Amino acid sequence: MRVTFLGTGAAGGVPLWGCTCAACRLAQQQRQRVRRPCSALLEAAGTRVLIDAGLTDLHERFAPGSLDAIVLTHYHPDHVQGLFHLRWGKGRPITVYGPPDREGCGDLFKNAGLLQFVTVHEHEPFRIGALRWTPLPLIHSKPTYGYAIEAPEQVRFAYLTDTRGLPSPTTRFLHGWGTFDLAIDCTFPPAASPKNHNDWNAAIACKAQVGARACWLTHISHTLDDWLLGERPEMPAGVQVAHDGLRVDLPRPAPGTP
Amino acid sequence: MRVTFLGTGAAGGVPLWGCTCAACRLAQQQRQRVRRPCSALLEAAGTRVLIDAGLTDLHERFAPGSLDAIVLTHYHPDHVQGLFHLRWGKGRPITVYGPPDREGCGDLFKNAGLLQFVTVHEHEPFRIGALRWTPLPLIHSKPTYGYAIEAPEQVRFAYLTDTRGLPSPTTRFLHGWGTFDLAIDCTFPPAASPKNHNDWNAAIACKAQVGARACWLTHISHTLDDWLLGERPEMPAGVQVAHDGLRVDLPRPAPGTP
Repeated sequence: MRVTFLGTGAAGGVPLWGCTCAACRLAQQQRQRVRRPCSALLEAAGTRVLIDAGLTDLHERFAPGSLDAIVLTHYHPDHVQGLFHLRWGKGRPITVYGPPDREGCGDLFKNAGLLQFVTVHEHEPFRIGALRWTPLPLIHSKPTYGYAIEAPEQVRFAYLTDTRGLPSPTTRFLHGWGTFDLAIDCTFPPAASPKNHNDWNAAIACKAQVGARACWLTHISHTLDDWLLGERPEMPAGVQVAHDGLRVDLPRPAPGTP
Repeated sequence: MRVTFLGTGAAGGVPLWGCTCAACRLAQQQRQRVRRPCSALLEAAGTRVLIDAGLTDLHERFAPGSLDAIVLTHYHPDHVQGLFHLRWGKGRPITVYGPPDREGCGDLFKNAGLLQFVTVHEHEPFRIGALRWTPLPLIHSKPTYGYAIEAPEQVRFAYLTDTRGLPSPTTRFLHGWGTFDLAIDCTFPPAASPKNHNDWNAAIACKAQVGARACWLTHISHTLDDWLLGERPEMPAGVQVAHDGLRVDLPRPAPGTP
């Protein structure tokens, strides 16, 4: 399974409009430090799925027919706003899976265009081509699912944004899931009381709780980037900070591992 | 008063994603034929106001503090989606005027960030710097206002999107408003029953009804562009099709005119 982190930014992105912190100033100068809306492309055995649709240039990045589906974690604008334009296109319908949320975002449900919204439910797996997806509830300010994704040959990947900590059933599922890699919400630097999202400590703790093999931190705000620049913290084993465009080929588990 | 048509496209824009009509094929090759979300910048006597915020790169086009206000015609996503990002910026609050609409769009009202939403009411003028704005009700699928805008020295401009035809009070107001120029919704080629928007004939009829001096057609769909390419219709006197980036300096009325 190949994972491409198309965007790794929190709402507001990096650079934040009008901000002069060190991280934002650097990102104004260095394209590779820009963080756009958090989203990822998953590819395995000929199946291509976009997780979250907050990039506003989806219609320029993806030719019609080039995606097998879109899967949404939740309906906050920075995770769905690219659909406002995409929906009016021509061509095959695109199935968009997402958690139960009557509101959705704006008039997406009312004027769906070529999008076909499908509601999925926690712990009820569904299949997109070669990939098996299990929705896992997260803890956020809107109904939100992470996803445990299984590709052929036991390649497993969990994508958990947006969340502050993890509900026990989600932790239990992942703890018993065998060998897998992880992308997790890490919006803030260490904070006394982070709101709706993990801070650095909570993200690292989640990784340990679920027993992931490798872990990429994503959904990163300018305050975390600024803290990383200043503190240069030691990275825990197996943990990396993702960046926009990062492409990772997840290896199969070693023979004999679960 | 200077008017810059930043975007002149209907929802879906030109080229439409996945479309192979002649207009869309041309727009894929020629940048000047691209139509982005319908919006305009008004500048007069040191006042700068953005009408509608559907461009998703507003944070790149406008430095913090460079706009005196934003005025919205209505809360459809292609008219407000640029605010989803802008709101999280740092700096002075930005006043955003718009029609009464409890729903707004997505979570804009709930999480306004640095935006300060102000509801205006039909036929109740308000002032932004050197400009006086009168909200005029339009006929659309969501509460929608056009605006009659007056700059110093009797320079007058009416901006009327999105609409299908005009309500009588709006026509009456404009008919008695003296000399003014007009931008108006012209989404479709001639149609038996255009939905929520003017077709070509209705837009031309509106111009005549209100007695505008010059008129720019905007909020243009790929179907209108395709029809224009094929039909090459004679343009009625004083009517032009706007394009993205078109900049117009509106002249004062000739001495002795109302």
